[in-house]
Amino acid sequence: MQTQWLDSIRWDASGLVPVIAQDRDSKAVLMQAFANREALQLAVQEKRAIYWSRSRQQLWRKGEESGHVQILHDILLDCDGDSLIYVVEQLGGIACHTGRASCYFNRLGPDGQWHAEGTVLKEPAHMYRPAPKD
Amino acid sequence: MQTQWLDSIRWDASGLVPVIAQDRDSKAVLMQAFANREALQLAVQEKRAIYWSRSRQQLWRKGEESGHVQILHDILLDCDGDSLIYVVEQLGGIACHTGRASCYFNRLGPDGQWHAEGTVLKEPAHMYRPAPKD
Repeated sequence: MQTQWLDSIRWDASGLVPVIAQDRDSKAVLMQAFANREALQLAVQEKRAIYWSRSRQQLWRKGEESGHVQILHDILLDCDGDSLIYVVEQLGGIACHTGRASCYFNRLGPDGQWHAEGTVLKEPAHMYRPAPKD
Repeated sequence: MQTQWLDSIRWDASGLVPVIAQDRDSKAVLMQAFANREALQLAVQEKRAIYWSRSRQQLWRKGEESGHVQILHDILLDCDGDSLIYVVEQLGGIACHTGRASCYFNRLGPDGQWHAEGTVLKEPAHMYRPAPKD
């Protein structure tokens, strides 16, 4: 497959581009992260959402620990080439590490406070293996 | 109104946070831009989507030229506090400066090329005033 399409993307100073994951069926915005060139190329090859983790400074195959893989159906690029959407099928119906369907569960109320909404579908303790004992 | 909610946001090194505009009704992702503290505070006060334009280095009241204002219905914050959604009603049904409903109209095809989709609902020449003659 050609990689010319990667040259159409306006990468930021760190070589990253923001990526929005949107659920193909519910249209919910599930999460937003970043991708570098390699993450995008692998995402297309492996047909799953792959990001670049800025905190861990490594490729992040979404769901590699939790099993909540995002099957990649489409990639959309915006008008000025600096923002992407991964249109995905969210396995397990859970995108967030808190066990919720979407990461955007805090809503600003008229009282000027954030209110956590969204059902916790699975306890995080059941989603991730405990850290190995040394 | 309190401004404590602004302190819950994890601003990047430039004092910005990515903001996704999502259509309240169609759930379409319309665009993605950035906001600083002032843009967010004013967005809440004025009940419309306000961003920080990185290219122009100034506040950007969406629709101030085109009339395609985004009425702000909700603000959602993600689990780790570094990404926002403006849930909006898009006046005129056009978010993109190309005259399309959404800015994400380029789809990556199986041929490895971007394909522009989405109907141009209004010609850009009719959306913006010509630059003033000097």
